Amino acid sequence: MKLEVSLKGTEKVDFWNNVDFCVGTGRMGLALTEEYLKELSFVQDIIGFKHIRGHGLFTDDMAIYQKRRNWFTKEETIEYNFTYLDRVMDAYLERKIVPFLELGFMPKEMASGDNTIFYWKGNTTPPKDYKDWTDMVTATLAHLVKRYGEQVYSWPIEVWNEPNLPGFWKDANMEEYFRLFKETFLAIKKLDSRFRVGGPAICGVRDKEWMKAFFDFCKKEKLKVDFATRHHYTTEMPKYDGHYTYQQLSDPEVGFENLQGSRDIIDSYKEFKGLEMHLTEFNTSYTPTNPLHDTNENAAYLAYQLERLGETSYSYSYWTFGDVFEENGVPFSLFHGGFGLVAHGCIPKPTFWTFAFYKRLQDHATECVYKGKNAVVVKNANGGYEGILWNMSDAESLVATLKLPAEAKEYTLISEVVDEVTCNPRKAWHDIGEPKNPSKEQIELIRKFAYPFCESDIVKKSRGGKIAVEEAVRPHGVIYFSVNPREFEGDRGFDYERRE
Amino acid sequence: MKLEVSLKGTEKVDFWNNVDFCVGTGRMGLALTEEYLKELSFVQDIIGFKHIRGHGLFTDDMAIYQKRRNWFTKEETIEYNFTYLDRVMDAYLERKIVPFLELGFMPKEMASGDNTIFYWKGNTTPPKDYKDWTDMVTATLAHLVKRYGEQVYSWPIEVWNEPNLPGFWKDANMEEYFRLFKETFLAIKKLDSRFRVGGPAICGVRDKEWMKAFFDFCKKEKLKVDFATRHHYTTEMPKYDGHYTYQQLSDPEVGFENLQGSRDIIDSYKEFKGLEMHLTEFNTSYTPTNPLHDTNENAAYLAYQLERLGETSYSYSYWTFGDVFEENGVPFSLFHGGFGLVAHGCIPKPTFWTFAFYKRLQDHATECVYKGKNAVVVKNANGGYEGILWNMSDAESLVATLKLPAEAKEYTLISEVVDEVTCNPRKAWHDIGEPKNPSKEQIELIRKFAYPFCESDIVKKSRGGKIAVEEAVRPHGVIYFSVNPREFEGDRGFDYERRE
Amino acid sequence: MKLEVSLKGTEKVDFWNNVDFCVGTGRMGLALTEEYLKELSFVQDIIGFKHIRGHGLFTDDMAIYQKRRNWFTKEETIEYNFTYLDRVMDAYLERKIVPFLELGFMPKEMASGDNTIFYWKGNTTPPKDYKDWTDMVTATLAHLVKRYGEQVYSWPIEVWNEPNLPGFWKDANMEEYFRLFKETFLAIKKLDSRFRVGGPAICGVRDKEWMKAFFDFCKKEKLKVDFATRHHYTTEMPKYDGHYTYQQLSDPEVGFENLQGSRDIIDSYKEFKGLEMHLTEFNTSYTPTNPLHDTNENAAYLAYQLERLGETSYSYSYWTFGDVFEENGVPFSLFHGGFGLVAHGCIPKPTFWTFAFYKRLQDHATECVYKGKNAVVVKNANGGYEGILWNMSDAESLVATLKLPAEAKEYTLISEVVDEVTCNPRKAWHDIGEPKNPSKEQIELIRKFAYPFCESDIVKKSRGGKIAVEEAVRPHGVIYFSVNPREFEGDRGFDYERRE
Amino acid sequence: MKLEVSLKGTEKVDFWNNVDFCVGTGRMGLALTEEYLKELSFVQDIIGFKHIRGHGLFTDDMAIYQKRRNWFTKEETIEYNFTYLDRVMDAYLERKIVPFLELGFMPKEMASGDNTIFYWKGNTTPPKDYKDWTDMVTATLAHLVKRYGEQVYSWPIEVWNEPNLPGFWKDANMEEYFRLFKETFLAIKKLDSRFRVGGPAICGVRDKEWMKAFFDFCKKEKLKVDFATRHHYTTEMPKYDGHYTYQQLSDPEVGFENLQGSRDIIDSYKEFKGLEMHLTEFNTSYTPTNPLHDTNENAAYLAYQLERLGETSYSYSYWTFGDVFEENGVPFSLFHGGFGLVAHGCIPKPTFWTFAFYKRLQDHATECVYKGKNAVVVKNANGGYEGILWNMSDAESLVATLKLPAEAKEYTLISEVVDEVTCNPRKAWHDIGEPKNPSKEQIELIRKFAYPFCESDIVKKSRGGKIAVEEAVRPHGVIYFSVNPREFEGDRGFDYERRE
Repeated sequence: MKLEVSLKGTEKVDFWNNVDFCVGTGRMGLALTEEYLKELSFVQDIIGFKHIRGHGLFTDDMAIYQKRRNWFTKEETIEYNFTYLDRVMDAYLERKIVPFLELGFMPKEMASGDNTIFYWKGNTTPPKDYKDWTDMVTATLAHLVKRYGEQVYSWPIEVWNEPNLPGFWKDANMEEYFRLFKETFLAIKKLDSRFRVGGPAICGVRDKEWMKAFFDFCKKEKLKVDFATRHHYTTEMPKYDGHYTYQQLSDPEVGFENLQGSRDIIDSYKEFKGLEMHLTEFNTSYTPTNPLHDTNENAAYLAYQLERLGETSYSYSYWTFGDVFEENGVPFSLFHGGFGLVAHGCIPKPTFWTFAFYKRLQDHATECVYKGKNAVVVKNANGGYEGILWNMSDAESLVATLKLPAEAKEYTLISEVVDEVTCNPRKAWHDIGEPKNPSKEQIELIRKFAYPFCESDIVKKSRGGKIAVEEAVRPHGVIYFSVNPREFEGDRGFDYERRE
Repeated sequence: MKLEVSLKGTEKVDFWNNVDFCVGTGRMGLALTEEYLKELSFVQDIIGFKHIRGHGLFTDDMAIYQKRRNWFTKEETIEYNFTYLDRVMDAYLERKIVPFLELGFMPKEMASGDNTIFYWKGNTTPPKDYKDWTDMVTATLAHLVKRYGEQVYSWPIEVWNEPNLPGFWKDANMEEYFRLFKETFLAIKKLDSRFRVGGPAICGVRDKEWMKAFFDFCKKEKLKVDFATRHHYTTEMPKYDGHYTYQQLSDPEVGFENLQGSRDIIDSYKEFKGLEMHLTEFNTSYTPTNPLHDTNENAAYLAYQLERLGETSYSYSYWTFGDVFEENGVPFSLFHGGFGLVAHGCIPKPTFWTFAFYKRLQDHATECVYKGKNAVVVKNANGGYEGILWNMSDAESLVATLKLPAEAKEYTLISEVVDEVTCNPRKAWHDIGEPKNPSKEQIELIRKFAYPFCESDIVKKSRGGKIAVEEAVRPHGVIYFSVNPREFEGDRGFDYERRE
Repeated sequence: MKLEVSLKGTEKVDFWNNVDFCVGTGRMGLALTEEYLKELSFVQDIIGFKHIRGHGLFTDDMAIYQKRRNWFTKEETIEYNFTYLDRVMDAYLERKIVPFLELGFMPKEMASGDNTIFYWKGNTTPPKDYKDWTDMVTATLAHLVKRYGEQVYSWPIEVWNEPNLPGFWKDANMEEYFRLFKETFLAIKKLDSRFRVGGPAICGVRDKEWMKAFFDFCKKEKLKVDFATRHHYTTEMPKYDGHYTYQQLSDPEVGFENLQGSRDIIDSYKEFKGLEMHLTEFNTSYTPTNPLHDTNENAAYLAYQLERLGETSYSYSYWTFGDVFEENGVPFSLFHGGFGLVAHGCIPKPTFWTFAFYKRLQDHATECVYKGKNAVVVKNANGGYEGILWNMSDAESLVATLKLPAEAKEYTLISEVVDEVTCNPRKAWHDIGEPKNPSKEQIELIRKFAYPFCESDIVKKSRGGKIAVEEAVRPHGVIYFSVNPREFEGDRGFDYERRE
Repeated sequence: MKLEVSLKGTEKVDFWNNVDFCVGTGRMGLALTEEYLKELSFVQDIIGFKHIRGHGLFTDDMAIYQKRRNWFTKEETIEYNFTYLDRVMDAYLERKIVPFLELGFMPKEMASGDNTIFYWKGNTTPPKDYKDWTDMVTATLAHLVKRYGEQVYSWPIEVWNEPNLPGFWKDANMEEYFRLFKETFLAIKKLDSRFRVGGPAICGVRDKEWMKAFFDFCKKEKLKVDFATRHHYTTEMPKYDGHYTYQQLSDPEVGFENLQGSRDIIDSYKEFKGLEMHLTEFNTSYTPTNPLHDTNENAAYLAYQLERLGETSYSYSYWTFGDVFEENGVPFSLFHGGFGLVAHGCIPKPTFWTFAFYKRLQDHATECVYKGKNAVVVKNANGGYEGILWNMSDAESLVATLKLPAEAKEYTLISEVVDEVTCNPRKAWHDIGEPKNPSKEQIELIRKFAYPFCESDIVKKSRGGKIAVEEAVRPHGVIYFSVNPREFEGDRGFDYERRE
């Protein structure tokens, strides 16, 4: 496979790179744990997301809603306990991340039924009493504003999760969800109109029908919803074996078209045209036990996703930053196909680097000059170029040649290579015997296999006034490159090449 | 080039690997600085030497010897100030290293002349009054024992440095050195006979003559010297350009023969036969501005040294652990050919890994099974093997095949590769323009190029009951490998190879 | 109140100070959380316990016992998942503490009923199938030995918790508990006889009856139980208000007699005479919402307990090290009467210092020279004395004068004072308005009030050859003092007193 | 002594509190050492100064000016080596502090004579060639701008130090200093007019004469000097004993009048009226071996200084932040009367807290409501008050009553007490025998005596609408207080006072 690009210097390509806006997380209660916070610190130190979104804010382990009956008087007391909420939010803010709040699930004592979802049994039924629910929601938001100040008004608030699935919302009852949305939306806006509230938080099942009905409803009810949300997964039907799930990746273009469908529905309303659409979850597979997540293949596939998702969506939140996760139960083994960008023990997976690379691109880019199926290239503020190359093929290498207009005589080319040969911690773990809970020494060993391989070179301007960046991207590889003018300092008498 | 080794399982080879006994350092006063201590911490965390030896204990910046004249009375006061000594020793002990004490140089106020050496002007003349000298030496040792306890008796004490060079000892006056040795030796032994005292600390100039004369003297004077010391450098005559020195490496065998010469002299005395000989300095080049020190070539050359030096010498102290050093002045640039295993900013040089690998071998070895010009192999306690392969050639790769007797069915092979392609921070620094004092960001970038590249593999036992370890060692490459029985855990349903 | 002690120098008093043997903890699952581990690190850094004991090893949040039914085949799989167990044990070992294992409670899927205890719903019914239980217990122990080596054989193992209460063991069924004990004991000893197993883990309800029956049973069944365990609380009946419990402290002597009763029962069997008795829980109040725990009164009361408990008991494990605890629900506020030695945010409570002082005494003591109702005094290895003084009165100060035989001319007296005036973080928190979840800045402010006030003095030997240590201990105060020979260094010209 | 203040609520007092603008330091070369940087980190973490000023930028240990003569050709090379300068500046910026650059002293190779000052022998003679000097100065500044960007233009630059003393400038030659100033000023302004350059950096000897002559010169030469600088010490003539100096404190008012004298001279020129005057050094004693510096007396005296210095001066830089200092030689002992706010081992001295308190006042003040000989009080943004009380008397306590207009019903009063009883590490060190270089354990012990004692209370509004803050300030005491409205949270059922 070849990629040959030769730029004139006049190119300017649309590229909405909002990679750092949000990332997904296991349920909020897990944010109390040390391993979770270590993994989050690791991710924030190198990538640095702005928002974090997950389930379980009101699930019982967060202990917010407290109804106690007095033994003697039989009186019922309702109180809100924010001890754990404060602890989690403090931990987030310490790590320079703030929530994209998802309101859910139902506290057991407030729930109208006992439908639950997941190993950790999130209750997914409507409240017995909507007033009880909106009281709790507004008390929680008011508490957050009191503790953290006006910044809270900028934290997006999403009502519930995937109500279009019966597992997540009893009977996938659309009418009931719209009621939940309306009551919640109005109660929050009454508290303070500066809060930003959105929905319908749907996944891909009957998504067009739901999206249309949701905006019809908002239009009818005059709810000036602040943003739309949906999810985006890109694998085919699963097969199961033991604790594991196996799935094929789907054609990326089908997914992009699907998102365009949602975009078009929203834009068809004059009231909502151009409204932000947030993908509040996306990934390849939607199961937390699909070995694909830990592979270089996943990393290469995601590189293409991150290039394209901004075409329809304001943000896209990878599900999830780390492997502390219990929806299917507690993981039995280190590499278990979890959603995380990092594995337990803070081992970055190949996909972690795809995100780190896009974040660096976002930080450095002044404008985009090329965007294709295997590469994206931007100019930076140093008078150089940076870009990402990827290869979704599992068999053939990609030989890329980029000819870029140059001003300086010499440039330094730095390449960071993530592929099955150079950055594949899962292989090292496999080779040492797939230990379930590796020792500290084994974790350190595996970590040595988890960082990009770096190469440097000096590239000289050709007579045609260009520099040539040449890279061979192995199957499932992702490469970050930067090429910056080389300023030479040197020291008196020093000659790099000289040997006696 | 090929290396083919096939072992029967009965081999047992003599291999005295004392790599961690001692390491060299810039003058003691520099141990007050932060950069020095950061570099030392880095070295100790990964390698972990037991002793540290350098010059300047009594040089004026350590401020131990204080003679003040009262302005009015003209009376002279002699005091010892141990503030800095304590600070340095505390810093050493915090980093789990203790000194190999070198007694020198002469405090200016005590000196009989003003010969000095180095940019930092160490005075290299005899004391005006030997009593003044031995008082200071014994007061210092007594202070150390009071503060640090009985461990101090095990810290080796060497009298002066390279008295066979006129720069280090006025006129290279042998008789005067012997006097210094004797007075010092006797004063220390009088303080406590448990102290261990040695000499003559010579370099390779007229070394046989000095070694013989020294032991004749000790024999005659009945000085039961505790150990002998000398130095070992392995480069030819230097050429100069600007701040830099360039030299050719010499034939290693010539150096080993030279050391054997010293060994033979010592062993020729029945009083001293088998006495420990410490190489209290060794390196390739003896100049702190020879770019060779920063190269992969140096790392490969040293790999052979570390295999062989134990044949004649009890210990061998690499000169030096870090680049904080001022003998030729303050370095002008990051990679300036300094002696250090690490460069400023705690960037490990290729030679650092040679030491780290030998240290790991020392920690893991149960017995040595192979020792040759390009490889050393040991058995470990896990029923596996570990070893180091190196290639001193600058042109040709070394293709090594080791056939090793096996008991388990499967082994995990881990290789860590240090060569010009995979672990060459100097090249990255050169490619970005040879910045003299790189910024923090540049240091971090260069550091990415300074760690071994790791590979893993599964090796199966052949029908012949052996496993084959195959490695291609590039020019100037050093590889550490371990091959350990693979115990497989696995998890229900997990298949590493499976993709849908 | 006065305490006057004058020693001759010949006193030697029995004093079994085993303060650091063990400490209590909230349920094991909480050991996954960051706040828990921060508090544990804090406690270990300053005090340093050897063992830690709490409930919930087999409760469902630890996720060890996994029974899954295949959707299609209906087959049941039983697996053990040690991911969280390993994580907790790793965290313990990192903090240099190892478990005193309590086997319990019952995994829901294994339980014969649905009696539960606590907010976190520990199942307290016997297993449906004892084989299933012993398989799990032995698999867990075997796993621990594999991961942590032979040290595991020295971790004490206690069977269940307080079976003499119906809340903790269905119907407080004694016969059923004895069955559980026997099956468990035999299964473990079969795995390896080096494991140490004990019981009956009872509290003070019908304790004599249970203790006697237990040892009758062990004798009859020839179970060579390795140690006996019971609990020890010292408050009267509770009154309730809102989230809180209020109780009076009971007479300490009554408690000591009660323990002596257990001791006597054990010693009445020739098979068990002298057997170690461990108080696997003790505290003043047994409720986690009694404000007493946070007071200086508690600290003074405990000072007396720690002096005396060793008279009957091998060890005594304070319930608990920190305030991360959920038995009565998630705490609503910072100082909420939790059991912890430290409050959330790692604020040491007054009682923390009582333990820190006894630990220091344990580390320094060479022999005990005085033990009374308000003081304990030991000799140390420096030729000095150290001791603890306390005052359980809530109204009157204790004026103590200790006359101690002296050898040196001068001594340095250091006193660390913990009382309501000098070290009372709860008061500072109250004065700033009792914030439920204080901000980081408020935590730092409160922490300033949580450390002992220190005083130093020079004490001179009297003509009678004694030194006098004089301390006034305020109500509810605890003072640690040390008095050590003063060695004077000084510097030329320095005069501490001089002012111009 | 009594202080009674009753405010109406309309008071507004001028108070220029610029306590954090600058702090002094030992010579720049010492900033390479670890102890120096630890002490600086400590100071910056708690106080946080903006600028740092000391001697020795161009002294030889910084190794900036390098003149080498070629052995063969005899050619001279002049080079600038910025390795150490960059290292020091990097270390400063890491600690969020930037230099107030003092240009001096003379590199030996550039000097016209060999007058030196201090143990470390700073050369204090004019350059042989002024061009050589200005080349070095501008090369250094250009290098700093290249490395650190435009911020460098805001770093004040002072030409030389105390040229009015012959020790600091050969013969205290005024004319020669003016030449140095002019050449330097013009060269820097030519490089970039944004640099800010000032002088004459004089101490109190013949200060009026010098100040006047300097501004006459600047006026005549049309040098638009950016700021004026002078020093300020407040002790009488010294007496000497051994390594130590003893002096009486002078009357503070005399010092303030002296500064007003300088202020008046500057303001008498229409060109310079209102020009910033920086006290680039101030302290009580000007000797680094005066035990006064380590006392509570010093802390109380400084409290008054910090209140008043802003009346005449834009900034005032305490000489010095830490005890790493070599002007009179290397300190022999821990508390040796050094200038530092902190002693070795990062032990804060009483004076440290005076600065910390003024910094807190600066951060919190919205306006000043009282300023007197023993107290300063400000309003804060919480609707409360904060202030500092001090007592310069060595015998009598100060009883202060402040009646302050109140709006809330209840306030929380927090007091932090620094006096000879509560915060006097020097006493603890003395009591343990004045160890010269205490062990780590001793340092930790002494540090326990080095923090303010904290008290809290609830203060209620009187019928007259005021709150009364009552404090007794012991001799040589300094107290920081804050009194803020108390917002009560509380929890259901919690009663702070209740005991059963």
